Amino acid sequence: MHYVQKYLDKLQAPKLNNTSLSNGYKTNIFLYCNYYSFYSQKVLMALYEKNIDFEPIVIDITKGEQYSQWFLELNPRGEIPVLKVNKSIIPDSTRILDYLEMYLDQENPPLLEVSQDPKVMMNIVKFRELIEALPAGVITVGSFFHPHLSGRPKLPFILPVREVLKSGDLSNSKNLRRLAEENPKAKSVLLYKAEIQDRKQEILTNEEEYLKIINIVDDVLSQVEEQLKKQNDDSWLCCDKFSIADINLAVLLQRLWELGLDERFWAFGKRPYIENYFVRVKQRDSFQKTIPGLPVHVKMILTSQPPIYVASAGIVSISLVITLAYLFKKLIW
Amino acid sequence: MHYVQKYLDKLQAPKLNNTSLSNGYKTNIFLYCNYYSFYSQKVLMALYEKNIDFEPIVIDITKGEQYSQWFLELNPRGEIPVLKVNKSIIPDSTRILDYLEMYLDQENPPLLEVSQDPKVMMNIVKFRELIEALPAGVITVGSFFHPHLSGRPKLPFILPVREVLKSGDLSNSKNLRRLAEENPKAKSVLLYKAEIQDRKQEILTNEEEYLKIINIVDDVLSQVEEQLKKQNDDSWLCCDKFSIADINLAVLLQRLWELGLDERFWAFGKRPYIENYFVRVKQRDSFQKTIPGLPVHVKMILTSQPPIYVASAGIVSISLVITLAYLFKKLIW
Repeated sequence: MHYVQKYLDKLQAPKLNNTSLSNGYKTNIFLYCNYYSFYSQKVLMALYEKNIDFEPIVIDITKGEQYSQWFLELNPRGEIPVLKVNKSIIPDSTRILDYLEMYLDQENPPLLEVSQDPKVMMNIVKFRELIEALPAGVITVGSFFHPHLSGRPKLPFILPVREVLKSGDLSNSKNLRRLAEENPKAKSVLLYKAEIQDRKQEILTNEEEYLKIINIVDDVLSQVEEQLKKQNDDSWLCCDKFSIADINLAVLLQRLWELGLDERFWAFGKRPYIENYFVRVKQRDSFQKTIPGLPVHVKMILTSQPPIYVASAGIVSISLVITLAYLFKKLIW
Repeated sequence: MHYVQKYLDKLQAPKLNNTSLSNGYKTNIFLYCNYYSFYSQKVLMALYEKNIDFEPIVIDITKGEQYSQWFLELNPRGEIPVLKVNKSIIPDSTRILDYLEMYLDQENPPLLEVSQDPKVMMNIVKFRELIEALPAGVITVGSFFHPHLSGRPKLPFILPVREVLKSGDLSNSKNLRRLAEENPKAKSVLLYKAEIQDRKQEILTNEEEYLKIINIVDDVLSQVEEQLKKQNDDSWLCCDKFSIADINLAVLLQRLWELGLDERFWAFGKRPYIENYFVRVKQRDSFQKTIPGLPVHVKMILTSQPPIYVASAGIVSISLVITLAYLFKKLIW
């Protein structure tokens, strides 16, 4: 048996201990997620906005835990986030957002039915769909291959992290195919993911193709800027209430900012309404609970093991040193 | 203004007349769909299984009505099906199936919470996910490009229809880009769809790539066969109750059969449990209401106009004659 498989077999499903005192165990709501994953962030922010008591179960995507046997039993597509409420299992951030909105206790603050005005409701659906259609993974990894297209990247996407993610992404489809052979039960899903991964690679490594995606983001942000212009100063994207469209926009803007794409899209007065919106949304409690801060970055990098997909552990060690140097500089100054 | 745009502008949003006596108007549940669309079929079958009164509003995808201004207001991604319940708009078949299951009147027969057994529930989620992950569009159009990989196609995918769909698909991304220029509001979504379309074309026109997808389908069907083997003779895929996994399987098998892929995957005793399952599922009332029969095919072909995307109307006229000849042969014998 291959060592990757051996490693994954060792990953045990986390035990859900009902005697714990935490709120998630009381409500029986668990979120399998990672605070660095774009799609997890959307669900986390919605949960915090709605004041829902839940228990986050962190999946170590740097070690490929989403492809371990126990996780594939939970979600055969090997993707986070997954919500578990009593016996119900809901994968996919879009479906989880629907679930939180429509099915859980109706007394939580709504994020969808926030207005009686049909035009506002139409706009919420429209902007939610427009933003959700953008391929966050391609935008992220593509920016590492074409650094001249973005500005200065911020944490967690500083140089050594970028190099690890880049080489991880390049060998991803090869690794998925290997895992497929070693996991007969998940074979078809893993092979299909490898196919998709190959197509993604074609786009994100080719500058012309990647620019097309970047221009699509640009176009969506133009529509966002136009929409924000129509709102009052203290309103959100579609009305005075914070909605599911705002969750999507906040997490997107944060990711673009981390990648240094803020300089291309809105900074320096390019899109002043988005610039102002981003400042305001960052102050929300739900945003601050969702997006990892500097202490979390330090802990993540100190406790992280070399990703199993990276052949040369040496590269990672060097990266770790550079990253730590960078972090301490940040902490001191 | 381009003629395509002029044509789309002429397509008016259907008027929802509340004074009508039909059940859909009473319950205020409308499904924007097409009975020939794979993803619409899943939702239609679920609605019929659950005995939900609804009003189908047929979108003419052969004329590109899903990209008309009024439809893009409803769903900026330009995709069917879309469910409208009172003021709520739910796009995407997966999300609609969730909605029907979790949010609508709980007295309708369930398709998800059909068992108390956690293992059965896990299997329902697993097979639902496995089958939903298969790319129905690529499988369908790819089979037209590599006819030697499948057996004899059936209605509606007989030769002239295949030729029209094939040429339509080849020019699809060009047309999407043109529409994008003519629809500033939907520009980004349409350009993104054109990108995806280009990637799909690469897979489905390349035999080696297409075979990989076909092998993934083969692998999923092996798992289905294994699962069916464990069930009683009168059970469905996961237990004695018909579930959301069965909806997905029924619609998939029907599509594969129409494409002539039954001969590759299960006919002639290759997978006897699937063969037997398909015979049984076709007898269900919900299946027969969902899948268009011969009279519907005749009406569709007689009333259909040449697709706006096909440059040479001549080809279509000839196709129409051949199709009609074929149909009449079928009707007489």
